Amino acid sequence: MAIVKPSLAKGTRDFSPLEMERRNFIFNTLKRIFRKYGYSEIQTPSFENLATLTGKYGDEGDKLIFKILNSGDYLSKVSNEAWNERNSNKLIPHISEKALRYDLTVPFARYVVMHQNDIALPFKRFQIQPVWRADRPQRGRYREFYQCDVDVVGSDSLLNEAEFVLIYWEALKELGLKDFTIKINNRKILTGIAEILGKPELIVDMTVAIDKLDKIGLEGVNKELLERGFTEEDLELLKPIVLLGGTNLEKLESLKKVLASSEKGMQGIAEIETVFAYIDAFKVDETLLEREVEVDITLARGLNYYTGCIFEVKTNEVAMGSIGGGGRYDDLTGMFGLKGLTGVGVSFGADRIYDVLEELSLFPEATVVSSKILISNFDKTLESYTISLLTSLRKEGIAVELYPVAAKLKKQMSYADAKGIPFVLLVGEEEVESGLLTLKNMESGEQIKVKLSTLIEMMRG
Amino acid sequence: MAIVKPSLAKGTRDFSPLEMERRNFIFNTLKRIFRKYGYSEIQTPSFENLATLTGKYGDEGDKLIFKILNSGDYLSKVSNEAWNERNSNKLIPHISEKALRYDLTVPFARYVVMHQNDIALPFKRFQIQPVWRADRPQRGRYREFYQCDVDVVGSDSLLNEAEFVLIYWEALKELGLKDFTIKINNRKILTGIAEILGKPELIVDMTVAIDKLDKIGLEGVNKELLERGFTEEDLELLKPIVLLGGTNLEKLESLKKVLASSEKGMQGIAEIETVFAYIDAFKVDETLLEREVEVDITLARGLNYYTGCIFEVKTNEVAMGSIGGGGRYDDLTGMFGLKGLTGVGVSFGADRIYDVLEELSLFPEATVVSSKILISNFDKTLESYTISLLTSLRKEGIAVELYPVAAKLKKQMSYADAKGIPFVLLVGEEEVESGLLTLKNMESGEQIKVKLSTLIEMMRG
Repeated sequence: MAIVKPSLAKGTRDFSPLEMERRNFIFNTLKRIFRKYGYSEIQTPSFENLATLTGKYGDEGDKLIFKILNSGDYLSKVSNEAWNERNSNKLIPHISEKALRYDLTVPFARYVVMHQNDIALPFKRFQIQPVWRADRPQRGRYREFYQCDVDVVGSDSLLNEAEFVLIYWEALKELGLKDFTIKINNRKILTGIAEILGKPELIVDMTVAIDKLDKIGLEGVNKELLERGFTEEDLELLKPIVLLGGTNLEKLESLKKVLASSEKGMQGIAEIETVFAYIDAFKVDETLLEREVEVDITLARGLNYYTGCIFEVKTNEVAMGSIGGGGRYDDLTGMFGLKGLTGVGVSFGADRIYDVLEELSLFPEATVVSSKILISNFDKTLESYTISLLTSLRKEGIAVELYPVAAKLKKQMSYADAKGIPFVLLVGEEEVESGLLTLKNMESGEQIKVKLSTLIEMMRG
Repeated sequence: MAIVKPSLAKGTRDFSPLEMERRNFIFNTLKRIFRKYGYSEIQTPSFENLATLTGKYGDEGDKLIFKILNSGDYLSKVSNEAWNERNSNKLIPHISEKALRYDLTVPFARYVVMHQNDIALPFKRFQIQPVWRADRPQRGRYREFYQCDVDVVGSDSLLNEAEFVLIYWEALKELGLKDFTIKINNRKILTGIAEILGKPELIVDMTVAIDKLDKIGLEGVNKELLERGFTEEDLELLKPIVLLGGTNLEKLESLKKVLASSEKGMQGIAEIETVFAYIDAFKVDETLLEREVEVDITLARGLNYYTGCIFEVKTNEVAMGSIGGGGRYDDLTGMFGLKGLTGVGVSFGADRIYDVLEELSLFPEATVVSSKILISNFDKTLESYTISLLTSLRKEGIAVELYPVAAKLKKQMSYADAKGIPFVLLVGEEEVESGLLTLKNMESGEQIKVKLSTLIEMMRG
């Protein structure tokens, strides 16, 4: 067997102990909060039948799906005709039946349809699993990354939307973020604006242009709007929308004036007002609605997909794209033949949140990567004593290890140091006789004498 | 877009909320214990470069590795020569560069080699991730399943072996198993026997035959041994090994007599004795070594791989294959060019353990699948009260949800029932006025009146 110098597949990462603990800190925080709001965990397989995924993400998306080669003599099923064409794309369905999960939404839709007889509606689920995309890898973009999705299907109550705002708020606060914005928009408001202008096909162009107001000013935006196909007359109508400002309530009042003649548009505004009223009723924080929530009608993510409220979350402490988003979709499971099931959900970008917490040094210091205590090993004759210490400490749930062979103190210390073990218990003959153990704090260098019972209390605290 | 009736890819499973909670119970128990013994978590990517995996699992294994089709115009790299051959196997390296993880051992070896400069030896890691094999699916055998591996590399101390026995013991006890056997053997004992007989190539035949003693008796075993190439003379030598019985210590004494002339064999016995002495020193349980540990020289798993102690774990409460195994390997990383690094590790078969716990009804009853309380919703006007209750309860970490719209009691009750929500809080005008809430226990049907503060205390307990 030839020796291969090992490397990682392009766009993938190993997670070492410290990274794992930090990632677990994020995932566990999210899971705890999702559960508190009544969401249950599910998992779906890493690969699906190719037909389940194909056609759900657009042509570009289809290309980015990782296909799995059929096993065995996979070419035996290829017809001569298909073979002779020698066309990469056309050959795929002949040699591949399975593909890696591209997101969590489509597998969730499949799950709901297949389990429709065993699940109680509304069905509230969260799902934290890796997904894979054949994107060109670059800084911060990987071919394997985790998605954290939380969705409810089968309930059109706007209480759900309000709870997602609170879930974001609570999760980001618990992760240590101090300044973030939960943006909210509603697809129906955008539809209303399009109705009034009579230009539904230009909605995205409009939001793109308006989004640049801070950078290029009203004149710049107007110029761009004209270039993108709007008329001078449109500009007049759009002006209050481009310049939309003030508090959220003021924004909604301005929008009401512009959209008065659009039933759909007014419905979108009313939905946001209801969400806000629900949030108020939670009495979680008095200033949340003005400080952390922002009505932003340039928010157009997933425009072809979402049908009601749309969310996007940004941190204001670090330059970073959105760290989460989501919205209401009225037909999640239609692609699998189950019509009329409404859903709403949001997603947390775990990899980006990781980068933000790292940049802001927000990971808890106390994150235990390994043992809390290393017991020194100076002499084999002491092992019967030191080994019984292991049992006493582990019985109390304390993570502890004995250096596995008798070795020089320096070697053992540098092992503890390299692994980030915060305490070393020095046990020599003197300690065995007196029952007073020497505990060294690896950070401060301080050494104290403790009884086992005292040590246990210290480590528990 | 044509509507596809959805199905799962062959050999894969969805995990619904109850299954997830039960799986998490297993994983969390294992993780807690691994950490207590000083092991840290790592994760490796789901796919590796094909060359990293190929040739590590034998020819049969290679066939079972799922290969990922290259992205883009993957046929453009295929030479005319390779194309014209139209051979499934030979074409693979031309159209696939990546493959799904087949086990956790080879990726771990790759990890150790790539991170050799940042890890402190001994390196103690655990890893719980899915692996994929293109096996023919059948009852209890899946194409995607989880492995739970815990290994230490860079330490030849037999303290590690002793701790793995304790890890098995503690984990299986904590999972609720009452009768299980941790079998131990040593590769060197098998080598010693082969040395004495002068038939190293027949070791596996020997263990297979001896393993049938209970079923076919000494005569049957001898007959089979003769058929498998042993001589009458060998049978005489083997007799004490075939009939090896009594306590572990008695077995070791018998083996010492047979293997007296084999240095290697005596070394294997000494290693097991050392492991047992370590286990004694832990003073965890006085009878563990005779009740749960069993010297079994028919244990030959991974014979080409393991070089020292070998472990296998079985439950005696349910008919089921091994639920775990492992051993010492002296050259884990040699395949990637890093020589002389010894390791020892064990693995837990999570899927089988799940089946065992289910059959024995050992999953904790209290496993919370969803909210602990459903707050009823009878009238929109009550929502400002019921929503504030949500906040009060969630502040205390209690998982709670409000039925999202006003609906008939029956509908809300059957929702709670279907989701396994144990309590429903009935809130009508009377409750709002009096502040006394009606709490219904969904299992017993019992209803009591409680103040919010009492409710919080009850739910915490």
